[in-house]
Amino acid sequence: MYLSMKLHVTNHLNLKLYPQTSEISSYADYKTKIRTNPIYRRNPLISKAYKPTMHVSSSFSSCCPVKSSLIDPDGGALVDLVVPESERVKKTLEAEALPKVRLTKIDIEWVLVISEGWASPLRGFMRENEYLQSLHFSCLRMEDGSVVNMSLPIVLAIDDETKERIGSSPKVGLVGPNGDLVGILQSIEIYKHNKEERIARTWGTTAPGLPYVEEVINPAGNWLVGGDLEVLSPIKYNDGLDHYRLSPQQLRKEFDRRQADAVFAFQLRNPVHNGHALLMNDTRRRLLEMGYKNPILLLHPLGGFTKADDVPLDVRMEQHSKVLEDGVLDPETTIVAIFPSPMHYAGPTEVQWHAKARINAGANFYIVGRDPAGMGHPTEKRDLYDPDHGKRVLSMALGLEKLNILPFRVAAYDTVDKKMAFFDPSRAKDFLFISGTKMRTYARNGENPPDGFMCPSGWKVLVKYYESLQAEEASLQQAVLTT
Amino acid sequence: MYLSMKLHVTNHLNLKLYPQTSEISSYADYKTKIRTNPIYRRNPLISKAYKPTMHVSSSFSSCCPVKSSLIDPDGGALVDLVVPESERVKKTLEAEALPKVRLTKIDIEWVLVISEGWASPLRGFMRENEYLQSLHFSCLRMEDGSVVNMSLPIVLAIDDETKERIGSSPKVGLVGPNGDLVGILQSIEIYKHNKEERIARTWGTTAPGLPYVEEVINPAGNWLVGGDLEVLSPIKYNDGLDHYRLSPQQLRKEFDRRQADAVFAFQLRNPVHNGHALLMNDTRRRLLEMGYKNPILLLHPLGGFTKADDVPLDVRMEQHSKVLEDGVLDPETTIVAIFPSPMHYAGPTEVQWHAKARINAGANFYIVGRDPAGMGHPTEKRDLYDPDHGKRVLSMALGLEKLNILPFRVAAYDTVDKKMAFFDPSRAKDFLFISGTKMRTYARNGENPPDGFMCPSGWKVLVKYYESLQAEEASLQQAVLTT
Repeated sequence: MYLSMKLHVTNHLNLKLYPQTSEISSYADYKTKIRTNPIYRRNPLISKAYKPTMHVSSSFSSCCPVKSSLIDPDGGALVDLVVPESERVKKTLEAEALPKVRLTKIDIEWVLVISEGWASPLRGFMRENEYLQSLHFSCLRMEDGSVVNMSLPIVLAIDDETKERIGSSPKVGLVGPNGDLVGILQSIEIYKHNKEERIARTWGTTAPGLPYVEEVINPAGNWLVGGDLEVLSPIKYNDGLDHYRLSPQQLRKEFDRRQADAVFAFQLRNPVHNGHALLMNDTRRRLLEMGYKNPILLLHPLGGFTKADDVPLDVRMEQHSKVLEDGVLDPETTIVAIFPSPMHYAGPTEVQWHAKARINAGANFYIVGRDPAGMGHPTEKRDLYDPDHGKRVLSMALGLEKLNILPFRVAAYDTVDKKMAFFDPSRAKDFLFISGTKMRTYARNGENPPDGFMCPSGWKVLVKYYESLQAEEASLQQAVLTT
Repeated sequence: MYLSMKLHVTNHLNLKLYPQTSEISSYADYKTKIRTNPIYRRNPLISKAYKPTMHVSSSFSSCCPVKSSLIDPDGGALVDLVVPESERVKKTLEAEALPKVRLTKIDIEWVLVISEGWASPLRGFMRENEYLQSLHFSCLRMEDGSVVNMSLPIVLAIDDETKERIGSSPKVGLVGPNGDLVGILQSIEIYKHNKEERIARTWGTTAPGLPYVEEVINPAGNWLVGGDLEVLSPIKYNDGLDHYRLSPQQLRKEFDRRQADAVFAFQLRNPVHNGHALLMNDTRRRLLEMGYKNPILLLHPLGGFTKADDVPLDVRMEQHSKVLEDGVLDPETTIVAIFPSPMHYAGPTEVQWHAKARINAGANFYIVGRDPAGMGHPTEKRDLYDPDHGKRVLSMALGLEKLNILPFRVAAYDTVDKKMAFFDPSRAKDFLFISGTKMRTYARNGENPPDGFMCPSGWKVLVKYYESLQAEEASLQQAVLTT
């Protein structure tokens, strides 16, 4: 059914790639167990995801450290920075009395990321030593001499006036965009925000037009404030998607509950087409061939900041749900959840962050494709990054030695077989590359992509979205004309 | 005599900082031994430096691996890439038959650096995997999983025409700027030279006006060629300074011969003023206090490419020699040699290279000051790097754990005591900062700096140089007017 795929499992230190003994006697047994469990008969997407209550009790999260047996979190223990219920009132009073730092929407995304432990062992916004290590080594050195990967600076910018207001206070209160108290930053350190250096070392360019730079860094203040974070209560968006926002702790618990003996993560920020599905299914097949009994796919769309022309998160989540409903991916062995990080589009530097965060969520295999986290050069007619560099850098990255990297060849539309297949250079002319831009153009113009590119119900979600976008644009234009 | 100095010895892993037992019974004994040795009665500078024959026999260098007991070279063994005498004819014939790559003056500097083992364990110009690791992690991972520092990409650029000429040849012959055969690059790999990314990640800026970028990278080709280097015979400049160009192997041998129990390296590219001397002497005093019996100073001026307004190497070497003759530094415990690397002016990134190379030369202590390898921002009115970042990054750098970093406070001219002293912020107004630019302005205008800034004979060397420069300029102007 699927084309054969050359799957290279790279692992610097020749760590054990084959499964540990599982308590489940056979995979068939396991499938039966799963099928007969009524919870999995509902929406194939949502039912497979562990459905948390809207507010995970912090006493639960602090008293029951969840640790999947597959891979340890960076630093040995998952960071959880939500203050216990019992201390909430006291901490809220403390925060109210402090000089305040107003957070942007993106800052809140980082607060969520840090507080749930995606960036473990990081316990707050970076102080200068952590910032410098991240910029220079894409790593942090731990006190015991070990090294964890940390390729993106996770920092909080403040302007001159806020710095002035903080004065010599050793801590600050954090206030959300709507004025609500979010948390406290303890034992703070304020240092210069050298934007040029940060941008150059993170993106490998300072050309104007990088989305995160234009929208987040350029408007930000000239100072950074680092410190230990305490979050008053779990961050919720109340956008109807919070049940997809599973914390690393929740994901690990779910992997353990399903008795996964391998977890392979797939990062994406685009609709799932059949090329992606081919790859994910083939990866699972190969893991089974390697002897794993129950490899679980973590389909993990990025849910934070994305550039304006990317498909919005709610549309993508609906599209993903159709892909599972249509059976293109097996809902029984797939968990769909949102990765709450904002997107940098920083290619080889960012892909390390994407992989590292998934270690913390319990994934021990990470799938990496062509030009991960890449984009076109903002001012030149070329890719910003060599499309091969992402997977090469990831395979060599310091602090990611325990993660198994699964590079894959590019998939394209095979016009002979009329389906998505791994690109075969020996008959290159038979293949049609359908880029994200091209896919969006099809959907925007109401055209259909070639048969077999994407499941029809998933495609309809995109068409509907672009129609609504055009209707909105038309009514805006009408409003402008009328005024 | 010297002002007290707060010397912080940092060492990530709490390695042993105190001396091992020495075979010399006492330091006084040792000094007597040194003094009575006739070789040290000559020029105090040159006599202290191990004086190699102009061409070190390669059979000597390959059969007698020198390994100072103080610190291991990176990768465990010093790289030596000069082909043995017995194979020279054969290798020359091999090189002659190969497609050729013409080297620039700076390329030759790197050939010297690599071939002598300063960049151990690097055995040639970087292939793409090494290049990417250097750009992203400032490190190379060894096969055994250990990590060595490698912060600057050491690469060889070629243009489209040369790439075309090489075709699919697995090796190339290297030809010097004068057309002489220099060596062979074996098992080559050609890959894209993304100059923008290289510059951004190395310097943390892409602003125009970086000396190495303008003079070396911008004019270079769009491809890089990596491979294993073989050098046909030791690189010599025949500029009257080759006897100062001691290889890491020669330096280690000399440290061992002197029975050094600590070697502290001082990198510089400027004339030595009394502030430098204060620091070096104070460092030695502190090392003696720590229990070392025979700490040796490696005064190690950089001898490769420098920017146009830096003082030329021959003038600096003459100035250094005067400083030793005047007794400002003790010739008995000082070795002066040339560090043959070109200068990048890449601040915190480059200082790692400066330190790493000195490990290979046998130094186990490295002195780092304010803004090492820094310069003014090329387009903005500020330092390009935060002056503190160099020593902070160096202290945290991956792969440099075995080196003891000695940060020092800035020295300035104390107008009350009329001498160079460590800056005391409590009486800041008493101190006069004499920058390199200011020093050059004094010398150019024939003015004297304040008494006690530099030893008079050293100062005369600079005055003479600037007089000759002005005479040259005047005669050039005259020539233009006459024509």
